[in-house]
Amino acid sequence: MKNVDLKTLVAEMLRGSEIATGRLISLIENYDLGREILPLIHKSSKHSYMIGITGPPGVGKSTLTEKLVLSLLEKDMKIGILAIDPTSPFSGGAILGDRIRLQKLITNPQVFIRSMASRGHLGGISAATLDAAKILEAFNCNIIIIETVGVGQSEVEIVQYVDTTLLVLSPGQGDDIQIMKAGIMEIADIFVVNKADHEGLERTITDIKMGQMNDNNSIYQAPIVSTIAKDNKGLDELKLKIINHREYLENSGKLKTKRKERLKFELFHRIYNRINNQIHGKFDSLEIEELVDDIYFKKKDSYTVAEEMIRLLGITH
Amino acid sequence: MKNVDLKTLVAEMLRGSEIATGRLISLIENYDLGREILPLIHKSSKHSYMIGITGPPGVGKSTLTEKLVLSLLEKDMKIGILAIDPTSPFSGGAILGDRIRLQKLITNPQVFIRSMASRGHLGGISAATLDAAKILEAFNCNIIIIETVGVGQSEVEIVQYVDTTLLVLSPGQGDDIQIMKAGIMEIADIFVVNKADHEGLERTITDIKMGQMNDNNSIYQAPIVSTIAKDNKGLDELKLKIINHREYLENSGKLKTKRKERLKFELFHRIYNRINNQIHGKFDSLEIEELVDDIYFKKKDSYTVAEEMIRLLGITH
Repeated sequence: MKNVDLKTLVAEMLRGSEIATGRLISLIENYDLGREILPLIHKSSKHSYMIGITGPPGVGKSTLTEKLVLSLLEKDMKIGILAIDPTSPFSGGAILGDRIRLQKLITNPQVFIRSMASRGHLGGISAATLDAAKILEAFNCNIIIIETVGVGQSEVEIVQYVDTTLLVLSPGQGDDIQIMKAGIMEIADIFVVNKADHEGLERTITDIKMGQMNDNNSIYQAPIVSTIAKDNKGLDELKLKIINHREYLENSGKLKTKRKERLKFELFHRIYNRINNQIHGKFDSLEIEELVDDIYFKKKDSYTVAEEMIRLLGITH
Repeated sequence: MKNVDLKTLVAEMLRGSEIATGRLISLIENYDLGREILPLIHKSSKHSYMIGITGPPGVGKSTLTEKLVLSLLEKDMKIGILAIDPTSPFSGGAILGDRIRLQKLITNPQVFIRSMASRGHLGGISAATLDAAKILEAFNCNIIIIETVGVGQSEVEIVQYVDTTLLVLSPGQGDDIQIMKAGIMEIADIFVVNKADHEGLERTITDIKMGQMNDNNSIYQAPIVSTIAKDNKGLDELKLKIINHREYLENSGKLKTKRKERLKFELFHRIYNRINNQIHGKFDSLEIEELVDDIYFKKKDSYTVAEEMIRLLGITH
């Protein structure tokens, strides 16, 4: 990227330029420039309120996000949305570019939307997403929404990065959903059962309540909100529950603790990525055909060969 | 675990004991003993044919797996199934224990089923799963099936670890599925459109074909098989396509290449986990409250602090 003056871009972003903001995020995502950009903005950034929206495919997360943003948006407020899209394992790029399904919000000057790729070895949330959220804090967003598509690592991670996590489900999605719900129930600050007009609503709500009964350690009981986002139903209640959760966090002192935990996670993330890149680089430069043959022909096991390589690479001491 | 003599367990497993096999996998999963166990078995293990079954929640993967196993199973053959379940982010344990949905197979003496947790920093497939597959190879399984629940990292990874990847979809699952499909289309050696009696079959097949048209680099064209697993429909054709793909890999010499690539991945995985554990250990031992406060109160940015910590920790040189 030639002729990019980061300081100028940062100054434009701080004056409210969406274009500069978008460009800074692109520089982070495509040219790994977070390391240069973050030191320029950290003093300007505030703590935006961060909301995570996650859940399995097909439950209507994008529609819910759209309606929720319109419901939360007040005068003089700015909302940023980072939509995490699955990464193609081969091209490395995100699938969607700017999200078609959120396009109604794109023309709203109070809303900034950005698709991010989910690549990165920690799973759902990449280092670039962490950095983009910092940019949006400096861009003066009151609220930042991170939406993930997927079931797995991304749900686990989002909770480490936002203040309020919405786990969106929908009625009657079969066995896998039941399992998945059991696996990630703990991450929900608020359960949203969207498509509440579909068959199976009661069973889904019962399943959630059963899961909660087993969870004796928690004082906070995550509320369950039924919505039909496409018809704008249930959004007021959802907004109220989000406000309640925020007040709970603030009054209990947990918001601060949570945000400091988030920074620890971020620190770990950075160190981890740095070292991971280092391993990748060294690994790729190595001639390992012979070592692989040793395993392939059952001369040695892979642990033994890995130990040899660690010594050979001199990565750690 | 007291009084465990690994060599005795390995000997029992090699003589065909399911109990010893299960215990070895438990020792790997719960006590991280892969490093001790693998050197004891690598000379006995053969190359099992590995099939990956993956796809989003709700498409009926477990039922398909069950029916496919029954279809593939021949006299004197053994099939191992590793079912990767989502990990609870809090308990760290897998959700399901032994899979309820696969229980019809549990009583079959030619089938060995095991649930594995998906924890592990590389996403869907943990180091323990890699080790468990080695155990099943030594246990003399002709075929090993790895089934994942999830959308994301696990799909990307499974392809690096199996010979034939089945990507299971089902008709009419909404927007997210469309995106997801576009993102992971390349991983499929065979597309399975299960629940083929549901509305939207034609559109799903068209979507897949459209995706394939864009993929000009590949000589091998992944076939699309429609199934209704619960009614045992389409299983014969699926079996045939798996056999065809295997023959294609063998005749083109790609099977060997693929397996060597798999070993490289495994090696990288081992080195990566080793170093990651090291970072975790050091990170946890550190007093970082002050460093976190520096970021929280906007004195420094996290990249700068991370650099300080890397120097402080002395992890790399």
